Amino acid sequence: MPLGERAGDKSDSRYCGVETEFNDDIPQLLSLNINGGFDFVVATLMDPAYRPSLKGDNDKSCDVLPFAGSDLVLSPSQWSSHVVGRISLWIDLDSEDESLRRDSEICLKQEISWASHLSLQACLLPSPKGTSCGNYARVVNQILQSLNNMQLWLRIPLEKSDDDSVNENGGLQREHTDSWEMWNSFRILCEHHSQLSIALDILPSLPSANSLGRWFGEPVRAAIIHTNSFLTNAKGYPCLSKRHQKLMSGFFNHSIQIVISGNQDQKHPLRSMDVDPNNNKNHVESVQRHPLRPYLDYVGYLYQRMDVLSEQERFELGYRDFLQSPLQPLMDNLEAQTYETFEKDTMKYIQYQRAISKALQDRVPDDDSSTVTILMVVGAGRGPLVRASLQAAEETGRKLKVYAVEKNPNAVVTLHSLVKLEGWENIVTIVSSDMRCWEAPEKADILVSELLGSFGDNELSPECLDGAQRFLKEDGISIPSSYTSYIQPLTASKLYADIKSHKDLVHFETIYVVKLHRVARLAPSQPVFTFVHPEYSTNNSNQRYKKLQFELPSDTGSALVHGFAGYFDATLYKDVHLGMEPLTATPNMFSWFPAFIPLRTPLCVRPGIPLEFHLWRCCGSTKVWYEWCATSPTASPVHNTNGRSYWLRKGDLG
Amino acid sequence: MPLGERAGDKSDSRYCGVETEFNDDIPQLLSLNINGGFDFVVATLMDPAYRPSLKGDNDKSCDVLPFAGSDLVLSPSQWSSHVVGRISLWIDLDSEDESLRRDSEICLKQEISWASHLSLQACLLPSPKGTSCGNYARVVNQILQSLNNMQLWLRIPLEKSDDDSVNENGGLQREHTDSWEMWNSFRILCEHHSQLSIALDILPSLPSANSLGRWFGEPVRAAIIHTNSFLTNAKGYPCLSKRHQKLMSGFFNHSIQIVISGNQDQKHPLRSMDVDPNNNKNHVESVQRHPLRPYLDYVGYLYQRMDVLSEQERFELGYRDFLQSPLQPLMDNLEAQTYETFEKDTMKYIQYQRAISKALQDRVPDDDSSTVTILMVVGAGRGPLVRASLQAAEETGRKLKVYAVEKNPNAVVTLHSLVKLEGWENIVTIVSSDMRCWEAPEKADILVSELLGSFGDNELSPECLDGAQRFLKEDGISIPSSYTSYIQPLTASKLYADIKSHKDLVHFETIYVVKLHRVARLAPSQPVFTFVHPEYSTNNSNQRYKKLQFELPSDTGSALVHGFAGYFDATLYKDVHLGMEPLTATPNMFSWFPAFIPLRTPLCVRPGIPLEFHLWRCCGSTKVWYEWCATSPTASPVHNTNGRSYWLRKGDLG
Repeated sequence: MPLGERAGDKSDSRYCGVETEFNDDIPQLLSLNINGGFDFVVATLMDPAYRPSLKGDNDKSCDVLPFAGSDLVLSPSQWSSHVVGRISLWIDLDSEDESLRRDSEICLKQEISWASHLSLQACLLPSPKGTSCGNYARVVNQILQSLNNMQLWLRIPLEKSDDDSVNENGGLQREHTDSWEMWNSFRILCEHHSQLSIALDILPSLPSANSLGRWFGEPVRAAIIHTNSFLTNAKGYPCLSKRHQKLMSGFFNHSIQIVISGNQDQKHPLRSMDVDPNNNKNHVESVQRHPLRPYLDYVGYLYQRMDVLSEQERFELGYRDFLQSPLQPLMDNLEAQTYETFEKDTMKYIQYQRAISKALQDRVPDDDSSTVTILMVVGAGRGPLVRASLQAAEETGRKLKVYAVEKNPNAVVTLHSLVKLEGWENIVTIVSSDMRCWEAPEKADILVSELLGSFGDNELSPECLDGAQRFLKEDGISIPSSYTSYIQPLTASKLYADIKSHKDLVHFETIYVVKLHRVARLAPSQPVFTFVHPEYSTNNSNQRYKKLQFELPSDTGSALVHGFAGYFDATLYKDVHLGMEPLTATPNMFSWFPAFIPLRTPLCVRPGIPLEFHLWRCCGSTKVWYEWCATSPTASPVHNTNGRSYWLRKGDLG
Repeated sequence: MPLGERAGDKSDSRYCGVETEFNDDIPQLLSLNINGGFDFVVATLMDPAYRPSLKGDNDKSCDVLPFAGSDLVLSPSQWSSHVVGRISLWIDLDSEDESLRRDSEICLKQEISWASHLSLQACLLPSPKGTSCGNYARVVNQILQSLNNMQLWLRIPLEKSDDDSVNENGGLQREHTDSWEMWNSFRILCEHHSQLSIALDILPSLPSANSLGRWFGEPVRAAIIHTNSFLTNAKGYPCLSKRHQKLMSGFFNHSIQIVISGNQDQKHPLRSMDVDPNNNKNHVESVQRHPLRPYLDYVGYLYQRMDVLSEQERFELGYRDFLQSPLQPLMDNLEAQTYETFEKDTMKYIQYQRAISKALQDRVPDDDSSTVTILMVVGAGRGPLVRASLQAAEETGRKLKVYAVEKNPNAVVTLHSLVKLEGWENIVTIVSSDMRCWEAPEKADILVSELLGSFGDNELSPECLDGAQRFLKEDGISIPSSYTSYIQPLTASKLYADIKSHKDLVHFETIYVVKLHRVARLAPSQPVFTFVHPEYSTNNSNQRYKKLQFELPSDTGSALVHGFAGYFDATLYKDVHLGMEPLTATPNMFSWFPAFIPLRTPLCVRPGIPLEFHLWRCCGSTKVWYEWCATSPTASPVHNTNGRSYWLRKGDLG
């Protein structure tokens, strides 16, 4: 029974599980827990007393492994939809004891093989014991090579102590525990396998917020919350601390399933036994209430009190963490549907209208009623900026003559209909041409464009406006007057896995557009390239080079950087800006998703050692491209050398 | 004119060059230096006053770049065989000054393009200036993508200061200079491109021997020795310090060419002007002696006094750094040629004979003349161990009965001839069978085998001897009685480049056999797996797992680990051993080259942080394989999971 209804939420985080001990009557175990309100059980598959090495040599062939129930006592679909396999806890593959290691390897393989036979969706692997996990990871990696669709959830306690210390030899002494380090080694040993994910064990005390944040970029599938991590409220019911509550909301928002574990009466006995007094008399006849029901109810309460998803969020749900190639409007003509989507972004056009109003007021005094301002919209599309311009003129009482320049002949058709429909024939002249080669009959006071990509200059706005500024008056205004790109380092294991699945270099050297969701933003964003329009300096070039240094907050701990989020912020005119850099983003704007710049090999960044990243914008005669690399903490190869994998074609004009 | 004749040395290190300043009369420059005794010049190609940005805008199209001479003043073959291009020294691609960066990029590309046009074999790139090289490496990497066969020699000063310090934030503060770090970043940014190599600048003071050692695993093509690095001897002639002399020998041994640079009379004037007094009068008529001739003569003297190559070294020259697949004698039958080569390894059979003698003496008292010792040679091949056994019997006066078991039917033919020829028919019984399935008519006192591979157990000696020990008496002796494999970390950029050139995973997950030469051994070797024979313990397994920690000597500095050298040491009997682990190697033995275990991504190891490496020997029903990985300083993927790339087949017996 799902935790509740939350409009728009179709994610797995609606379902809550319970961890159970070994019970060889699986049907009874299941019915008890499902009737008790849980959606699935995390059930021990193998008798915990079993050890392969204890088997007698003589009965090798006829031995039946002591599994809890077979596929006859439960149907495969029951197994598959209601049971996550819990692998034996005694398994210790990095023990000093060789025979324990050998037993562990045999048993782990037997249990996974059994779980595959039952078509389970996932198995929970016990936490690595001690500080080393090399042998454990090797065996899991062997298993992953020939696994069916099953996920392996590696159980990782959510813990990180705060003291780092440095020894005299110059080496970092890692006396602190940071369970993330163990996870990071494990998954690198297993080569970021997409079926290896995480079940986080939530303990009574939590690490810092920055440290917690890292996990939202990792493949966490489940969070196991122990009854002893709950507090008891005044009425004797279980509840969670504010920080735990916030963390739970994060899990719900990131499709992470909750599993409740532990014993109700072990450490934090409920004051009342939680039995409905009305049912008190006939409790023997009725189904017994599940002992962990109060915990489940509390988790359900937390789920149900989450904010509903806004319309924009629901629209964006399907785009979350889905890699798209950026538009190349200079090469391809946009489709009507695309224009329509972008035109719905009201906030954007309000900002443009404000900027144009201010520019008009600056150019023409209030008492001048005769001057006609020449305004050119370059890249007019189906006309939204023409409309914004005319509204600005009306609002400020200025006279306007508008040229609407558009290279897409299909959009020009729509534009003509619009002008006729609105009766703008005397004010608006439509020009069907590429702005870079149009010979304007007169010069413009104001040049208005919306050519920015997610990363600012990545849809060739600089090259287009360089071409258009020929017909701007010497004191004319470009709206936007400047724009700057920004980047910030991310943990984004989902995006990395998607790119890696292509098994080629090209996909690692492409810049994407993506609605970032399952990511961790590791440091504040920093400005990269700025372009100013108009640009009259001689020897001007649209090539750029920027070296950036990021430092992770010291309480984050180490983190894996899979790549960088890219944003832009544009100054339309004076104080009117438009942008999607997280800290200064224009609210309620949806025309742009962030860019994602991947790294071929993710970089592990440790506290105190800066992440140094280089980004180039390169211009050739027919194309523009980016190259990028890291030089600290370790060097990476230069990505996309000579634009070999990804570039922007300048189009027919060359 | 080569530095001298050294029997067997056909390497480039016979040739010595000279670095020259810009001179636009290239034919004169060349004849002066070639007549002066040098084999090639490192000549500046472009007028050092040239800057692309200083060109007037109006003469863009008709400008001729100010190169020193064209391909008409010297033929392409003269250019190619006698000139290395020296790229302009002013180039600084990581300057803060954007226009200098832009000029540098243009000029570097122009010069390389010109050098390619002239078919030069190499260009010398100036040292990176400052501490950053991101932009320089990017441009060089762009150039490398479409370069012809030309090598780019990046000039790197050979310097490393000794103090490391650690800052309070736990980060390594690298206030010291270690030019290796710069090289390492540069080549990683250029993705280990095979045409990017090093020209080392040799300065008056040298880093520690451990630090110098690193460079012999790197692609050093030239060493530029400055006149001011020379000392002056009592007679006023230039000479070098002992440490410099030793370094020069290292260069000669590693095919590294010497280039002399600087001015004879600038800092260390020669006391005499080095003009033959007999020629003093007619020095105007005669060709003037080259001012750097005394330096050249001294380098020639150092070259000529090198030891000549031994016969074994000459034999091995062709195998140096050449990757071979290990033999799989269980799968394939060896050829006569292979047997013959191995049989020539006298030292090996002397050791076997000594071991057998000792074993015979231990089993049969001196005064016992009746006991016949049963000795079985398993894997007898063409009979060298049979001969060694009979010689041991003769030497010790013991009676012997020999069974010679061999699975290769071709070798059995030779074996029969040998026995007939030597008249051994009464003593030696030939058995044409696989030792793992032969049913012996009696049990053996001594079991003699030579089944070891470079890495000890990597030719399935454990599996073979497990099969053969059935017919060993309970108190019988196996020769060898035990063997242990060893590994040590290496810098081996040549081997890495060869493996990388295959562009697949399989070659990075294969263990090779290779005569290691251009490598740096970074730490003493450590034992890995040990096998003892006979082995009667129950629950015995030939699976092994070993975790090893290596620390680089603190004065080495950082180094790149491309993989591990593998060796073995075997105890034949009691104190008689046989092996090739460097510190304990049996002298003058050539049957085994070391093994090489590669890493998919080389690991940069810094002082004070251990290199942690894991190695597994895995046994399946039909094959045996190794898996390996690193977990510190950073984790690597597990290599060769499930033996997917490389394995040893157990042969027909399954």
